[in-house]
Amino acid sequence: MEDINLHFTGDIYAIERAHNLLAALIDNALHFGTAPGQLDPRSVLFRRVIDLNDRALRFVNVGLGGKSNGLPRETGFDITAASELMAIVCLSRNMHDLQARLDRILVGKGNGRPVLAGELGVTGALAALLRDAIRPNLVQSLEGNPIFMHGGPFANIAQGTNSLLATYASMNLSAVTVTEAGFGFDLGGEKFIDIKCRNGGIYPDAVVLVATLRALRYHGGQSLKSITQPDADALMKGMSNLKRHVDNARLFGFDPVVAINRFHLDAPDEIRLLQEVCGDWGIRAVVCDAWALGGEGALELASVVRDEVQGPPREHRFLYDADAPLLEKIERLATVYYGATEVNLTQQAASKLAYFEEHIGRDLLVCMAKTQKSISDDPSRLGAPAHYTFRIQDVHISAGAGYVVPLAGEMMRMPGLPKEPAAHHIRVDETGLISGLF
Amino acid sequence: MEDINLHFTGDIYAIERAHNLLAALIDNALHFGTAPGQLDPRSVLFRRVIDLNDRALRFVNVGLGGKSNGLPRETGFDITAASELMAIVCLSRNMHDLQARLDRILVGKGNGRPVLAGELGVTGALAALLRDAIRPNLVQSLEGNPIFMHGGPFANIAQGTNSLLATYASMNLSAVTVTEAGFGFDLGGEKFIDIKCRNGGIYPDAVVLVATLRALRYHGGQSLKSITQPDADALMKGMSNLKRHVDNARLFGFDPVVAINRFHLDAPDEIRLLQEVCGDWGIRAVVCDAWALGGEGALELASVVRDEVQGPPREHRFLYDADAPLLEKIERLATVYYGATEVNLTQQAASKLAYFEEHIGRDLLVCMAKTQKSISDDPSRLGAPAHYTFRIQDVHISAGAGYVVPLAGEMMRMPGLPKEPAAHHIRVDETGLISGLF
Amino acid sequence: MEDINLHFTGDIYAIERAHNLLAALIDNALHFGTAPGQLDPRSVLFRRVIDLNDRALRFVNVGLGGKSNGLPRETGFDITAASELMAIVCLSRNMHDLQARLDRILVGKGNGRPVLAGELGVTGALAALLRDAIRPNLVQSLEGNPIFMHGGPFANIAQGTNSLLATYASMNLSAVTVTEAGFGFDLGGEKFIDIKCRNGGIYPDAVVLVATLRALRYHGGQSLKSITQPDADALMKGMSNLKRHVDNARLFGFDPVVAINRFHLDAPDEIRLLQEVCGDWGIRAVVCDAWALGGEGALELASVVRDEVQGPPREHRFLYDADAPLLEKIERLATVYYGATEVNLTQQAASKLAYFEEHIGRDLLVCMAKTQKSISDDPSRLGAPAHYTFRIQDVHISAGAGYVVPLAGEMMRMPGLPKEPAAHHIRVDETGLISGLF
Amino acid sequence: MEDINLHFTGDIYAIERAHNLLAALIDNALHFGTAPGQLDPRSVLFRRVIDLNDRALRFVNVGLGGKSNGLPRETGFDITAASELMAIVCLSRNMHDLQARLDRILVGKGNGRPVLAGELGVTGALAALLRDAIRPNLVQSLEGNPIFMHGGPFANIAQGTNSLLATYASMNLSAVTVTEAGFGFDLGGEKFIDIKCRNGGIYPDAVVLVATLRALRYHGGQSLKSITQPDADALMKGMSNLKRHVDNARLFGFDPVVAINRFHLDAPDEIRLLQEVCGDWGIRAVVCDAWALGGEGALELASVVRDEVQGPPREHRFLYDADAPLLEKIERLATVYYGATEVNLTQQAASKLAYFEEHIGRDLLVCMAKTQKSISDDPSRLGAPAHYTFRIQDVHISAGAGYVVPLAGEMMRMPGLPKEPAAHHIRVDETGLISGLF
Repeated sequence: MEDINLHFTGDIYAIERAHNLLAALIDNALHFGTAPGQLDPRSVLFRRVIDLNDRALRFVNVGLGGKSNGLPRETGFDITAASELMAIVCLSRNMHDLQARLDRILVGKGNGRPVLAGELGVTGALAALLRDAIRPNLVQSLEGNPIFMHGGPFANIAQGTNSLLATYASMNLSAVTVTEAGFGFDLGGEKFIDIKCRNGGIYPDAVVLVATLRALRYHGGQSLKSITQPDADALMKGMSNLKRHVDNARLFGFDPVVAINRFHLDAPDEIRLLQEVCGDWGIRAVVCDAWALGGEGALELASVVRDEVQGPPREHRFLYDADAPLLEKIERLATVYYGATEVNLTQQAASKLAYFEEHIGRDLLVCMAKTQKSISDDPSRLGAPAHYTFRIQDVHISAGAGYVVPLAGEMMRMPGLPKEPAAHHIRVDETGLISGLF
Repeated sequence: MEDINLHFTGDIYAIERAHNLLAALIDNALHFGTAPGQLDPRSVLFRRVIDLNDRALRFVNVGLGGKSNGLPRETGFDITAASELMAIVCLSRNMHDLQARLDRILVGKGNGRPVLAGELGVTGALAALLRDAIRPNLVQSLEGNPIFMHGGPFANIAQGTNSLLATYASMNLSAVTVTEAGFGFDLGGEKFIDIKCRNGGIYPDAVVLVATLRALRYHGGQSLKSITQPDADALMKGMSNLKRHVDNARLFGFDPVVAINRFHLDAPDEIRLLQEVCGDWGIRAVVCDAWALGGEGALELASVVRDEVQGPPREHRFLYDADAPLLEKIERLATVYYGATEVNLTQQAASKLAYFEEHIGRDLLVCMAKTQKSISDDPSRLGAPAHYTFRIQDVHISAGAGYVVPLAGEMMRMPGLPKEPAAHHIRVDETGLISGLF
Repeated sequence: MEDINLHFTGDIYAIERAHNLLAALIDNALHFGTAPGQLDPRSVLFRRVIDLNDRALRFVNVGLGGKSNGLPRETGFDITAASELMAIVCLSRNMHDLQARLDRILVGKGNGRPVLAGELGVTGALAALLRDAIRPNLVQSLEGNPIFMHGGPFANIAQGTNSLLATYASMNLSAVTVTEAGFGFDLGGEKFIDIKCRNGGIYPDAVVLVATLRALRYHGGQSLKSITQPDADALMKGMSNLKRHVDNARLFGFDPVVAINRFHLDAPDEIRLLQEVCGDWGIRAVVCDAWALGGEGALELASVVRDEVQGPPREHRFLYDADAPLLEKIERLATVYYGATEVNLTQQAASKLAYFEEHIGRDLLVCMAKTQKSISDDPSRLGAPAHYTFRIQDVHISAGAGYVVPLAGEMMRMPGLPKEPAAHHIRVDETGLISGLF
Repeated sequence: MEDINLHFTGDIYAIERAHNLLAALIDNALHFGTAPGQLDPRSVLFRRVIDLNDRALRFVNVGLGGKSNGLPRETGFDITAASELMAIVCLSRNMHDLQARLDRILVGKGNGRPVLAGELGVTGALAALLRDAIRPNLVQSLEGNPIFMHGGPFANIAQGTNSLLATYASMNLSAVTVTEAGFGFDLGGEKFIDIKCRNGGIYPDAVVLVATLRALRYHGGQSLKSITQPDADALMKGMSNLKRHVDNARLFGFDPVVAINRFHLDAPDEIRLLQEVCGDWGIRAVVCDAWALGGEGALELASVVRDEVQGPPREHRFLYDADAPLLEKIERLATVYYGATEVNLTQQAASKLAYFEEHIGRDLLVCMAKTQKSISDDPSRLGAPAHYTFRIQDVHISAGAGYVVPLAGEMMRMPGLPKEPAAHHIRVDETGLISGLF
C-alpha cells in the first residue's frame, strides 16, 4: 500500500518534471528575450506544479533578485494532479498524439495572439521525459486480480479517470473492463464519458452508481455526528441525490445499476427501503460486500452487471456537442446536469472564455472544476440542488488536453495542509516499516 | 543511459519530495501560527528544491495572494543536488541515523534561538518518504561490472560523492571499492576524506588523480580553441596545477597515482613528458585507455593501484580538526589547501558563521561551495593559484548533514539554462527511442 | 491657476505625509514585534497614498530585501484624494474631533479583533502634521469673489465635497454659501447631504442641478463625435437622466433649480425645449452664462436661487437611517436611488461588510465608490438605468471618517496614466511660465 | 520651529512629487511598451522617494496584481533628501540648467545603451513642478538675521549643502556669506568645495571647523556614558581626529579656524589645552558661545573669520581632477583624504563604475555615501583612521547632478524608525500647539 501511495512507479514525478521543465524553458526564453511571438510575460498562463499540498506556493513571484535571475513575474504552483500534462498523458492515444498535444499547450499571449508550447521548440524534451510515464502500470489486488493503475487526476479539478492507454490495454486483455470514475457521477462519470470516451472513440456498456446509506442520509440532512445511526426519514429525503444521478445517467442512455456499499452498522430495513425506491424508479439496487468479503461479496453485483453488458454496443451519446459555443456547453452542464437555473461568470471568466473560443477553438470540451460535496457549485447545497445560480469565477485552459476548466465557486487547484497535518503521526522504524500513513 | 539520466530509480524525486514537504510544513505552521519557538518567518533558512536548472526560482516570494494563502515570505529554490536531504541520505549510516539527522536540520530562528526540524514533529514523515531512497542502487557497466550508483550531490556545491551506505555495501561485497569523487581533488577528493570518510569511520588505501593533457595545457594558458593541439610549453606550465593536487594528496598521507586519460589526438611525446615530470615528483603516471578499450585499457592502472592498496590500513588523517573554530577550518582550507594568503568574509557571512558556531556547534565540518574551474575561488585563476584573497560571500548550513557551506566567489546553488537550451534538440520517436540527449 | 493646480497650500502633501507616516509606523511595529493586539500583518487594511496616477503602485509587496528591511507584506497605494485622512480632515469639526477620528482608523485585525490606530499611540504625531491642513484656504475668483478651496476628495471614490470647517467659516462670513458637490447629484450631491451635512448638523436650503445640452444628448444616445450638433431627439431621450436626478433631489425634499450651462454652439430651440420639459416637471430651468460672462452671466440663476433660500430652514431628511444595517443602507442607495433591482456582493465584500458591522459599528455611513459616467455601476448604462443588478466587488472602510466604501463595478482607487500622458506637452520657460498644463 | 521642521515652504514635497512623477512615467511607458531605447525593466535604476523613515519601502516589488496593473519590477524608495532631483535643484544655476540636468538623468539601459530621462519626453512637466522649488527661501534667526534655507540633502548620502541659487543670492545681498556644510569636513566640507563650488564657479575665502570637547574625547576613546566628564587624556588622543580635518582643509589651501562650540560643563583647562595644541599646528581656535548667548557669543569668532576673508580671492583647488578616471577619483578620496591604504569594490560596484565611465562620462564627480561617525567607512574607527581598506559595496549615479554615489560600508539611503519612534510623544492641543517634537 505504501508503495502505491508514496512514490509508486514515478509517473507523477515524470509528469511534474516535464511540466516544470516547460515552465523553466518559458522563463528562460523571457530572460534572454528569445520567446516566440513577442510573448508578454504578464500573459503567461502556464504555472508550475508540485505534488504536495503547499498553500504558500499558490501565488508566488518569481524571477526576483536582480537582472541575472530572470524576469520578475507573478505566477504560482498547482498540485501535479491538476497539471495539463497529467491530462495529456491520460488522454493521449500514442506517442505521436502525446507530442501533438504537448505542442498545442497554450503558454500565453503576444500582441493578443496565442503563443503555443510547440513554438518554443522544446516539446520533444518533454515527450522524452514522459516516454515511460505514458505506459500503463499493472498491479494486483489482494486476491491477485490484475488492475491497471495509471494516471492520477482528481475528478473535482481534472478529468478524473485513469489513462486511455490503460483502458485500451485492459480492453485488449480481458472480457470486461471496469473503470472507477472519481467522486460522484456528476464529476468522474460525466467526464469519463464526455471527455475520455469521446477522445478515445469508446463507450461504456453499463453504468454502476455506488451508494451508501450514510451518504444518502447526509444528503437528507442527517448530521455528521449521528451519521452511523439509522434514520429512515433522512434516507428518504437524501434519495433525491441518488435520483439526480440516476436521471443524469439516463441522459447518456443508461439505466444505472446501484451498488449499495454496505457498512456493518447498516440497518437491513433501510437497505430494503433503498432497494424498493430504486425499484420504483426502474433501477436495480444490489448489496455489495466487497470491502468485507472481497470478490465473493461482489458476486451478485457482478452478475447483474454482466447481464447489462451483454447487449449490443451502445450509441455514443454526449451531454453536449463538441461544436457548440463554449458558454453553451457550460450552460448545458450547469442547467441540465447540475440543476441550476442560470450561469453567472465573472468578467474575467467571460473574457477568457471568449478569448479561448476565438483563438484556440470552439471545439474545446469542458472539464468543470467543482466541489465534490454537492451536485451544485456550493458544498452546502445537499440533495438535488435546484433554483440556484451556478457561479464561474475563473476559467483555465488545457489546450493540449483539449478542454477549458471553468472554476466554479471557491475551487482551488492547490490544496493546503490542515492545522494539524497527518505528517505529525507518520513514523518509520529501523526495518523500514511505516506507521501512521492511514 | 537514458534510464540512468532521466528518472532512474526515483531517489532524487523522493529526496526532492521529502525536502519540499518539510518546506510546506514550515509554511503551514507559519500560516496557522503553530510554529515552535516563535519562529520568525524572515529567519527561515530552509529553501525549496527542484531538479531543474530554473533561474527564475532562485529568488521567489511565496505566500502571496491574501490571507488565506500563507504568510508572505522571501525564499527560493536550489537544485535538488544541493538539498540538505541529499547530503543526509548520502551520509547516514542507517535509518536511525537518518532520522536523527533530519531532526537536526536548522529551520530558522525564534527570538535568536535556533528552531530545528525535529521541533516541528514531522520528520517521521520525511523519513518515510526516504525509506527506499537510502537503499543503494546497483547497476552494471557495459562490460557487466557491478556499480553502485547512489546519491547525486555535485562536488562544487555539495559533498560530491555517492552514499556511505553504497560504499559500505561495496566494501562488504568486493575486494576493492573504487569511489569517483566529483571534479578535482580540491573538491570531491577533499570532501570524500574530510566529510564522508570521517563520518563513516573509513579511509581510502590509495588515491588516483585523473589527468588529461588538454586540461593541463589549459591550465598552462592554452586557448580553448586550440586545445587539441600539442603544446609542450603550455603543458609544462600547466603541470603546476597537477602538482598542487599531488601536494594536497600528500597532506592526507598519499603519493597519488596519476591516471592519464588518453585522447586519440594526444601526442606520445607529451604523454612521456608528463610521465617524466611525475617521476621527478616521485609519482607514478599511468596511461589509461578505458574510454576507448574498456576494462582492458585500464589494466596497467589497475595493477599499479592494486600494489598501492596492499599495504596496511592507513592512518586516518584529516585536513582540519573537527573541533577547531569554524573560521579556522575555513582558513586552513583556503590557505593550506587552495593556496590563498587570506580569507575575506562579507559581514553577512561572518555573522552567520558566528551564529552557527555558537548555536549549532563548533564541530560542524566545512563543505566548500567553490568553482570547479580553479583551485581558487575565481574561475580565471589557472594553474596553482597563490597570493590571492579567498572571498566568502555567504554561508549556508546543513546542520543535519553536519557541516556549513561557505559560498566562495559568485557560487550559485541553482544553475540557469543557457540561451540555447539542450531541450531544443531532444526528440523521442514513436517507438520511444530518444535522440539528442547527448 | 498653476498655483492652485500644482502644489497650492500644501494640504494634500500634509495629508499624504500623515497618512504614510501611519503606514510606516504600522510596518515599523510589525518589524519590531511591538504592534498592539497581536496584529496579523496579512490583515492590515491601511494602505499608502501618493498624489500621482501611478498604476504600478496599485499592488506592491513591501518589506522585502531580508530581515533588516521589515516584514514582507502585500499592500498598495491609493491616490491621496482617496486617503481616509483626506476624509477625516474634511469631516472634522475641530482639532479634538480630528484627533478622535484618527484614533478610530481601522488598521487591521489581531485574533479576529479590530486593531485601531489609536492603539498604536502615534496619532498625536499625525494630528501635528495636519494642524495647518485642517484650516480652510481662502482664494478669490477672477472677479475678486472670496472662495474657500479646501479638501480634494473625488466624489466617485470619496465623499466629494470640501471641508466642513470651510463651510462653517463661509456660513459665518456670508449670507449665502454655495457648495460645489463633485460629479452628478448621484455622487457628490448625495454624499454632501447624507455624509457631510449629517456629520456637521447642517442642511442646504436649495439644490441646483447643472445641466448641459451635450451631456443630455449623450445620455440620449448621441455619439461623442457629433456631440456639438443639435439633436432634439437625443435631447428628449437624455432628459430621462435629468429627471432621475430631479426625482432623487425630491427624495431629500427639494425641487431643484436646473442651471443650464450654455455653450456657444447650443441651439436656442433645444434650450427652450429643455426649459419646457422642466416646466412640465414643476422645475425651473435657468440659462447660466457664467463661463462666458462671469458673474453677470449668472444673475438670473442667482436671483432664482435667492428666492429658494428665503424660506424657513428645511427639515433634515436623509436617504437612509444611520442605524439601519449596512447592507440595508447599500440596498436603499442601489434600488431607490440608482434604480437597480437588486444588489450582488462578492463573497469577500459580504464577509467584510459583516465584519465591519459587528466589530466597528452598524452606524457607519455609506460612501459609494461608483462610476461617474452612469447613475448605475456600469459606465455604459446611460439615461435612467433600471432593471439591473448593482454589483459590489469589495468593501473598504474609513472608520475614522465614519463610513464604509463599497466598490461598485470595476472601480479603482488609484488611476493610471494614459498611453500618451499629458506630461509630454508640459513646458516651463526661463521666466517660470508654464505651458501645456491645460 | 515647527513651521520649518514640518512642512516649510513645500520644496521637499515638490521635489518628491517631481521625482515620483518621473518614476510613474517610466512604469507607464513600460506598461504600454512605449519606453524609448528598448528599456529593459530590470535595468531601471531610478527608484521612488518619500520623506519618511520607512524601512519597509527600501525594497519593494511593484506592478503586481495582474496584467492591467503594470509590469512587475523590483525597485524601492529612498528618502527624499537622497533624490537625484534634490541634488539637481541644489546644483542648478538657473531654469535652463535645471531642465538640462533633468534630461540627463539616467533611467536605465536598453540593449546595453543608457536610456536618459530626456528621451521619455516628459522632463518639462518635472521642471514645471520644480518651478518654485528652485527659488531660495529666506527665513530669519531669533535675532532677526536673514538666513537662506533652501535644499535638504544630508551630507552622508548626498551633497550636503544648500542650493547654489541661495548662495548666489546671499553673495549678491551681503558682504559675507556663511555656509553650513553638514557633518564633518570629510563629508559636507569636501562636497561643498569639490562638487558645489566647482559647479558654481565660486570658492570660499575661509574654512571654519566646529569642534566640541566631548566629540574630541569620544574620538579619543571616552565612553558615551561619561562623555560630559573632563578627561584630558582622551581629549589629547582625540585631537588626532581634528588634526586630520585640519590637514584635509590644508589640501584645499586653507588654514582653518577652529570654532570651539562650548558646553556649560566644559572644563576651562581642556579648552585651553585644545587651543594650545591648535596653536602648535599653526591654527587659531576660538571659543564660540553662540548657542548660549546668540550673536554676542560669536563675536570673537566673527572677528577672526573677518580677518581671514579679507585677503585676495583664493585659487580654486580641488581634491581631484574632474577628468581623472572614476576609480582614480575614488581612490584619491579614500587614500589621501580618508586615510585608507586601498579601495575594495564589490564586483557589482566595479562593473557599474566601468559602465558609468564608458557610457555617461569620465567627468562625473564623486559624491561619497559614507558614515558620519568616522572619517573611514566604518563607524567604529575613531580618531584618524589609517591602515585600512575602504570598501565600496555599490555605486549609484546621479547623472543629472553630475556625479556617482559610491556606497561605502553598510550605508543606506532610506533610514528606518527606531523601536520606540518619536511619534509616540508628539501631541497637538486644541489651539494647534505642538508638543513633543524635540
